[in-house]
Amino acid sequence: MTTDLLAKNDRLAGELRARLHLDGIAACNLIGAPGAGKTTLLEHTIRRLSDVPITVVEGDQATDHDARRIAATGARVVQVNTGTGCHLDAAMVTRALSALKPEPGAVVLIENVGNLVCPALFDLGERAKAVIFPVTDGEDKPLKYPHIFRAAGLVILSKIDLLPNLDFALAEAIDNVAKINPDAAILQLSARSGQGMTDWYDWLRSQFAAARQSAFA
Amino acid sequence: MTTDLLAKNDRLAGELRARLHLDGIAACNLIGAPGAGKTTLLEHTIRRLSDVPITVVEGDQATDHDARRIAATGARVVQVNTGTGCHLDAAMVTRALSALKPEPGAVVLIENVGNLVCPALFDLGERAKAVIFPVTDGEDKPLKYPHIFRAAGLVILSKIDLLPNLDFALAEAIDNVAKINPDAAILQLSARSGQGMTDWYDWLRSQFAAARQSAFA
Repeated sequence: MTTDLLAKNDRLAGELRARLHLDGIAACNLIGAPGAGKTTLLEHTIRRLSDVPITVVEGDQATDHDARRIAATGARVVQVNTGTGCHLDAAMVTRALSALKPEPGAVVLIENVGNLVCPALFDLGERAKAVIFPVTDGEDKPLKYPHIFRAAGLVILSKIDLLPNLDFALAEAIDNVAKINPDAAILQLSARSGQGMTDWYDWLRSQFAAARQSAFA
Repeated sequence: MTTDLLAKNDRLAGELRARLHLDGIAACNLIGAPGAGKTTLLEHTIRRLSDVPITVVEGDQATDHDARRIAATGARVVQVNTGTGCHLDAAMVTRALSALKPEPGAVVLIENVGNLVCPALFDLGERAKAVIFPVTDGEDKPLKYPHIFRAAGLVILSKIDLLPNLDFALAEAIDNVAKINPDAAILQLSARSGQGMTDWYDWLRSQFAAARQSAFA
């Protein structure tokens, strides 16, 4: 990773953030390892928040599977394929939003490439980064992947419906998040069972409301 | 990712492979997303294959948690911390092996940084890459992360004790692996329940025997 590359990305991300701010658009950068439950969370969110204008940028190395799943919900979506690339960058998101043209006051949900490492370094002009941390992983993930947890405004403990079948130490996991990032909000949910989803919807609405307010004040 | 960087890594990996070959050492590069079950699999493997000289290289962004878990089994281990880095490279493994000094005919198990993306590009001089694909992830992972599945000699479907609690389509997952890499061996196992572990031990012993045979023939 060259410093030049990161500096160029930071510049583009700054421009994108300024544009989104002017239009009162709340962009959320959703980060998690492959299989953390990112797309499933988006499907439920779009179907439930039918009063919120949501557009989606889908990042994957290959296939348009996720974009097709999102399109089936009725939301506008662009799939970005990164090839061997391991993260989305601000240029990709800028191009995707030029195609999507989200309306002023919209919510843009950006699903990053499934990776708990590289996306930490690349600012996408988002309002917040949300990290999905499934309880099927180990409790020590925040300590072992500190960069991404430190960058997150929200940490979502996902797949909690499986807790009775696992040896996952929930309190220790929450403690590990707090050790790395005491300011992060922490939610627990399961898209499959519905547990905790209201907290996530409330968090997303608060982001949406704050973006509108700051733009149209 | 610059071409220079990859070319330099390929050169170092080639040198490392030649040295390991001369000493009849079988190195296996274990790759999987965070929480796939890599360290747990290693712990069980070292305890069970007590007749096989096993040394371990542990890759993580931060902490020495995994090295301490491995050291508790009695195996020699070196922890490599990559900081913001997203993968191990051949130079890191060469340095680790200079410290570990595995004996001729040994097995070296290399646990890569938890990441299903970047490690695909970096040859570590290993005899085989094994990808761990937990059934708590989606069936479509081989299609969405094709580079890593294409590079693998072995794909391990892990955590199969959880299958009764999941909506995972096992046959479809196996079919997706075969679509991307028809030559890959596929195993199903659970380190927790013990199901399928014998197949993994047999595969590892076959690697070990082949490395010894080709060196000491």
